[in-house]
Amino acid sequence: MTAKPALSDLAIARAARLEDIDVVADAAGIPRSRLEHHGRHLAKVHLAAADDLADRPAAKYVVVTAITPTPLGEGKTTTAIGLAQGLAQLGARATVTLRQPSMGPTFGIKGGAAGAGLSQVLPMEKLNLHLTGDFHAVTAAHNLLAAMLDNHLHHGNELGIDVRSISWRRVLDVDDRALRGIVEGLGARIDGVPRQSGFDITAASEVMVILALSTSLKDLRERLGRVVVAFTTAGRPVTAEDLRAAGAMAVILKDALEPNLLQTSENTPVLVHTGPFGNIATGNSSVVADLIGIRTGDYLLTEAGFGSDMGAERFFNVKCRVSGLRPDAAVLVATVRSLKAHSGHYEVVAGRPLPPEMLAERPAAVQSGAANLRRHLEIVRSFGVSPVVAINAFPGDFPSEHAVIRRVAEAAGARVAVSTHVSDGGAGAKALAEAVVEACDDPHDYVPTYELDEPLRQKIEAVATRVYGADGVDLAPQAAKDLERFERLGFGGFPVVIAKTHLSLSSDPTLRGDPRGWRLPVREVRVAAGAGYVYAISGEMRTMPGLPRHPAAESIDLDEHGEVVGLS
Amino acid sequence: MTAKPALSDLAIARAARLEDIDVVADAAGIPRSRLEHHGRHLAKVHLAAADDLADRPAAKYVVVTAITPTPLGEGKTTTAIGLAQGLAQLGARATVTLRQPSMGPTFGIKGGAAGAGLSQVLPMEKLNLHLTGDFHAVTAAHNLLAAMLDNHLHHGNELGIDVRSISWRRVLDVDDRALRGIVEGLGARIDGVPRQSGFDITAASEVMVILALSTSLKDLRERLGRVVVAFTTAGRPVTAEDLRAAGAMAVILKDALEPNLLQTSENTPVLVHTGPFGNIATGNSSVVADLIGIRTGDYLLTEAGFGSDMGAERFFNVKCRVSGLRPDAAVLVATVRSLKAHSGHYEVVAGRPLPPEMLAERPAAVQSGAANLRRHLEIVRSFGVSPVVAINAFPGDFPSEHAVIRRVAEAAGARVAVSTHVSDGGAGAKALAEAVVEACDDPHDYVPTYELDEPLRQKIEAVATRVYGADGVDLAPQAAKDLERFERLGFGGFPVVIAKTHLSLSSDPTLRGDPRGWRLPVREVRVAAGAGYVYAISGEMRTMPGLPRHPAAESIDLDEHGEVVGLS
Repeated sequence: MTAKPALSDLAIARAARLEDIDVVADAAGIPRSRLEHHGRHLAKVHLAAADDLADRPAAKYVVVTAITPTPLGEGKTTTAIGLAQGLAQLGARATVTLRQPSMGPTFGIKGGAAGAGLSQVLPMEKLNLHLTGDFHAVTAAHNLLAAMLDNHLHHGNELGIDVRSISWRRVLDVDDRALRGIVEGLGARIDGVPRQSGFDITAASEVMVILALSTSLKDLRERLGRVVVAFTTAGRPVTAEDLRAAGAMAVILKDALEPNLLQTSENTPVLVHTGPFGNIATGNSSVVADLIGIRTGDYLLTEAGFGSDMGAERFFNVKCRVSGLRPDAAVLVATVRSLKAHSGHYEVVAGRPLPPEMLAERPAAVQSGAANLRRHLEIVRSFGVSPVVAINAFPGDFPSEHAVIRRVAEAAGARVAVSTHVSDGGAGAKALAEAVVEACDDPHDYVPTYELDEPLRQKIEAVATRVYGADGVDLAPQAAKDLERFERLGFGGFPVVIAKTHLSLSSDPTLRGDPRGWRLPVREVRVAAGAGYVYAISGEMRTMPGLPRHPAAESIDLDEHGEVVGLS
Repeated sequence: MTAKPALSDLAIARAARLEDIDVVADAAGIPRSRLEHHGRHLAKVHLAAADDLADRPAAKYVVVTAITPTPLGEGKTTTAIGLAQGLAQLGARATVTLRQPSMGPTFGIKGGAAGAGLSQVLPMEKLNLHLTGDFHAVTAAHNLLAAMLDNHLHHGNELGIDVRSISWRRVLDVDDRALRGIVEGLGARIDGVPRQSGFDITAASEVMVILALSTSLKDLRERLGRVVVAFTTAGRPVTAEDLRAAGAMAVILKDALEPNLLQTSENTPVLVHTGPFGNIATGNSSVVADLIGIRTGDYLLTEAGFGSDMGAERFFNVKCRVSGLRPDAAVLVATVRSLKAHSGHYEVVAGRPLPPEMLAERPAAVQSGAANLRRHLEIVRSFGVSPVVAINAFPGDFPSEHAVIRRVAEAAGARVAVSTHVSDGGAGAKALAEAVVEACDDPHDYVPTYELDEPLRQKIEAVATRVYGADGVDLAPQAAKDLERFERLGFGGFPVVIAKTHLSLSSDPTLRGDPRGWRLPVREVRVAAGAGYVYAISGEMRTMPGLPRHPAAESIDLDEHGEVVGLS
């Protein structure tokens, strides 16, 4: 959620002068022969482009993260876009890599996720709808595996699957709470084996994470084969390979492994690819997009979901390990509204306007939320890179409030810049761009939070204490047993992902600022063997959103000229 | 299912010399500016192309149908493709319009549906997988409406929907029997309202039929608004418009309304678009593809699903009424194997090899199945056009068996030709092409089976008696009441679709040949108010297939070069 100028995002997007995607590719050095066009303004990039570009120098690599966001978000996407445009104003070439928006929330609470104002990704209608169909391919591959699993049960369960152990649900890219819990297989004998199950949103599929983490088609095929869907009654894992589904899944996903090339409102290159959920999954765009993007200019900016404790932690500890790429700096997006929210005096609710008292000039409220910003600066530094605080300015902000954020950041030794990219495009992000250029030249050295050869339990504790600031971890007895079991089964060398709320540094979504004196409860641990991580679940994780009383879909329509209205 | 030469279809498809889709469009007279490219060999055609072409003469319009098929099919698709190639050999320009294959059966029993041998649609991998994502768009639009319906119940059911009356299920393009019957909404209060429901395959969605029958984006939007999903407790229909879902659905389907341009193995144009189910829906490709295709050459060939009692009946009585196009001739595809099957002496099972005794030389068996062919010739003639019998030749056929079919057809006054397009491409279909050219010059005058202003019951009886050869219709009492109710609600002017087995002219799938002395039982009638027809259900209609014990998916994979294997 971001400041909006007078014209709607859709109107601005329509008015923007789009370059042919060939021209955008030229500027990025991507050979036109490596493009698979989807119309004039959108193309898939063949993975072989990475080989073509191998001799070019690597760009500076910058992750764009945020302080603990309000439910409205901090505007990371739009800041990443604005920053790329700002770098272009300085004469540098910058590419952005982003996740693809999920259609579920677009038609639910969000109404779109293409940036805002003069810092958008275009063509925005394609971005907010099917793009090139990658999410649909994930849905199809995921559900084929589910169908083959149930088909195996129906035809006699030769593998001896313990039906109660099945963890592979189905997915759809729609906000549909009624599908969270279902009983399937009802009817006659020919209608399958009845059992309890449910649907998650496609972004929560392990297939989505696999697509995001695969480094090649071969790697994708192998990861799919390793997906564990259940256990046998004897306790052995049952994989997609055992069910002979992984080959067909890879075929369904073949084109989806190629990143999508789009452009910003100022025609700089954007690679949009994959969209793993930010809580139970990695919350980062794809490795292959970054492996291509890193050779396309002077700077590669990549957005990581939610705050630095969430997407950025996984960026550093999971994604960078897979890609081998090493970040040079981090941008930490902050807004006046979120620091005010961290004061604990206001309540922000997704899909509703801000409380009017939050819009008044209250520098003291900003100051009392500053602990959250300071903590995120420490988190970013713990990974060995310099943070730049980007104040994502809104038209109603007061200079006194920006000044508070600036003082807090500078007192913590961080660079800081106010950015007005939403209203002004790249011209509004020049100060931010300058700060990022400097930060990349600071001495830096990537440091993960843990080593992979530590025990799983120790890795979870390291993230909880060193990143979140917890005093320790309380593992439910079954979770402790499962961690030992995963180590026996050969999953001990995986990194960990902790599924917790993004609305607090702690596991309690109501705690603002920098909560201290708490322990992280872990009620359950699971393995994503294809994606290659173990995840620990802390608190209630919703993997299928619901629609609000009045979904954004109600306002989305075609006008009399057949043009789309209501997307933003 | 069709005769196959020594090389696999995939190998032939790979070896074929694909033209740039621009060149294919040029030959069809479609301006390049009206193409939305999806790579070099596939493009969507903007609907405005129909306006560009409006001054060009209309092509002869030929529907390709079949006698009552075995579960393996008669090879209509491949015959339509071969015929187009054969017409090209005669110097005529022919375009084919086809339905898009469904991924469910492709990964289930079929392994692909792109034609066969030297009469294929290319690029076959795109065709058999996502193509340009139209099916995925149907899935997304359909399920958004389902989610908004359940969301309406969850937020208090302001419209007063009678939950037991809800007829709108969900869809997925996968063969998944376990989803036929589900209970949804399980869990806590926030997880929706529990109720019984289920999933159909995407091809069975009313949204798919709407996409196939819409004549413009405006028409699409209006039809979506008219979709009836349930009734109120007071008996009023509840529409997608009432739920404020139709606008968003139209936005999701906007690109999907544009037909997809591909090419045959001999580079002639093919428009592939939509894929409504052949039993409960229309079983024909889209109206917009035909409205464009009719101006692209000398002949437009369109395939209609199953036998002439099924897809062709709906072609004449439903599709032609919507499009306003009038057919000039019909091709009736027949195979030796199906006439043998109609003798009643053999059993053909989908997904299994033919019984070996069917492969022996048995002209007498062919003769005893001839009644079915004669009946289909009558059906085609009842619509006012001349039929041409296309004998789709298989390598193991005997000349004596072809001779029987020829004699039967000629005795009934029909043209007939043996076609070896699968082995020989267009060169093998020249005789068929010549017969079709002649048939189009016969005097002809389109005659529907019934007038729209007849009562619904009378329309159902007209199809049952005049097309199927039944003695009459037995309406279940509730069905009779519902027909009256539909007339009161204003749906009386719709055409009708009868959902019955495609494996017999009768409603009993085990009856071969030309069954007589039977009555059509109708147990239930429903209205597809957006698509614009009333459908009567006779017998068990399966709207969600299941997977066989060993699905085709088990053999589909990537090879060591990353190429797809196992599709056909």
